[in-house]
Amino acid sequence: MSLDFLKEYELIINENIKKNIDKIRVLDKSHSSIIDGMEYTLLAGGKRIRPSLCLLGAEIGGLNKENILNFAAGIEFIHTYSLVHDDLPGMDDDNLRRGKPTCHIKYGEGEAILIGDALLTHGVRLLMEEISTVKIASQFEAIKLMLDSIGLLGMIGGQAADLQQEKAGNKSLGILEYIHKHKTGSLLEGSLLAGAILANSDNQIKKDLISYSESFGLAYQITDDILDEESSVEELGKPIGSDVKNEKLTYLKIFGINKAKEMAVIEVDKCKKSIGNYGIYGNHLIDLADYLLERRK
Amino acid sequence: MSLDFLKEYELIINENIKKNIDKIRVLDKSHSSIIDGMEYTLLAGGKRIRPSLCLLGAEIGGLNKENILNFAAGIEFIHTYSLVHDDLPGMDDDNLRRGKPTCHIKYGEGEAILIGDALLTHGVRLLMEEISTVKIASQFEAIKLMLDSIGLLGMIGGQAADLQQEKAGNKSLGILEYIHKHKTGSLLEGSLLAGAILANSDNQIKKDLISYSESFGLAYQITDDILDEESSVEELGKPIGSDVKNEKLTYLKIFGINKAKEMAVIEVDKCKKSIGNYGIYGNHLIDLADYLLERRK
Repeated sequence: MSLDFLKEYELIINENIKKNIDKIRVLDKSHSSIIDGMEYTLLAGGKRIRPSLCLLGAEIGGLNKENILNFAAGIEFIHTYSLVHDDLPGMDDDNLRRGKPTCHIKYGEGEAILIGDALLTHGVRLLMEEISTVKIASQFEAIKLMLDSIGLLGMIGGQAADLQQEKAGNKSLGILEYIHKHKTGSLLEGSLLAGAILANSDNQIKKDLISYSESFGLAYQITDDILDEESSVEELGKPIGSDVKNEKLTYLKIFGINKAKEMAVIEVDKCKKSIGNYGIYGNHLIDLADYLLERRK
Repeated sequence: MSLDFLKEYELIINENIKKNIDKIRVLDKSHSSIIDGMEYTLLAGGKRIRPSLCLLGAEIGGLNKENILNFAAGIEFIHTYSLVHDDLPGMDDDNLRRGKPTCHIKYGEGEAILIGDALLTHGVRLLMEEISTVKIASQFEAIKLMLDSIGLLGMIGGQAADLQQEKAGNKSLGILEYIHKHKTGSLLEGSLLAGAILANSDNQIKKDLISYSESFGLAYQITDDILDEESSVEELGKPIGSDVKNEKLTYLKIFGINKAKEMAVIEVDKCKKSIGNYGIYGNHLIDLADYLLERRK
């Protein structure tokens, strides 16, 4: 398994994010701290899994990733908005993320609400930046898919179910699956598929990528739950065992750690099988799935 | 002055909002309370000024308003998101709006954050609904304009400056103008102009509508400040004098009530002069400007 490509992708996505932040900064005559907060949370050190999935989806469909960097960066803006709002006192009330104070701790609660709003709004705006090599109808379709994947029937629906579950104490497997399929899985799937749509990919590719995403999303969440139990504060950048402390409903809670690890392996295996012969970029997707089993943060 | 058209527009916009809420409700398998909160805040009784401006902009450009009802409703979803987040404890901390408990009072703070997020996300999604009579490139341009008008360089920038001003106690006229031009004016202008862009209007129309919007936005804010002082709780649906209580920077505070009233009249006059011979829909815009001076809520 080689993850060199992921480092390369992380680098070019980070460069694009910085470029886009600089662009707004020049135009922002009020010198608002909102833009500092956007930059702070965007550059706090994410692995850029979602934009990388988008770039891989495009490459598998035959579209050079360099063409859609703004689109991919937009996805990371949107993902970051969801983290900022999720950490707020009214939601998960988290003080630490990726080893740093969360947005509302650093900038204040009102500002963090606005920083999240700005990340979402500007994220969608970046999805709309002109892509000369892509037909506007395909771009329109890809953006609609992204909005559906982060809306009430996608990511927000998952966050709402999570919030409701914490209050109601409903701890069934059905609820857990609903939460993660929507809260985490939906954006991962949307990111990969949007890339393929931008590339005007055929139905077989899209079908394979959907299969891959379903298992990838599940494996991602299970390994996330395992990390919360097994990693260290230094590695993870946030308090260990916080799921247990917060009485979060997790795969570990329902299945225990050994069974959860087995499940992750099975899902990663399914990821690999769902990918046909898609050359180097298909191999990157396979490596990315394997990486889920080895990551320490 | 006849405002019959505004009642008619309010009716068809409300019908479209209800239709769109019903559509999501059917698809939402988690039966989340988020959708109840969206409906509650959307139907709390707004005057639908922004979507009406959008419909008028389209009609002036020669596009039948019936074609863009989803787009106009999307604008109201977006406006409503801004109210929900603005009322949050971390922001203005308001308990009452339009005579009813604000969203976080009724549904809880975490839910209100998500309800706002869902309104914004679904609002943008509605802007993207297919309009068979409009070229996709024009729709794309109109959506980009909307996103710019609600982003960091528009509405969010105004809200950020407002929040900052309250903390820093900066009470200059320059700040007041910046806040209102962005927080209120930007979305009003974007709504009217987006309609004109959807209709593929020529540059003269767009120029006139921009002039109109600039004065309309200012008149809207000044009359809003006057209402906060002069209206009754019953009429306004929220506590009177809350601006004074919250030490808000207002036009009344800087100029006093008489001068503020004069300024409103001058801006409404400018609105009227900026509108060329645009027939019945131009007249509606003129009536709408006059209405600002007479409204009691």
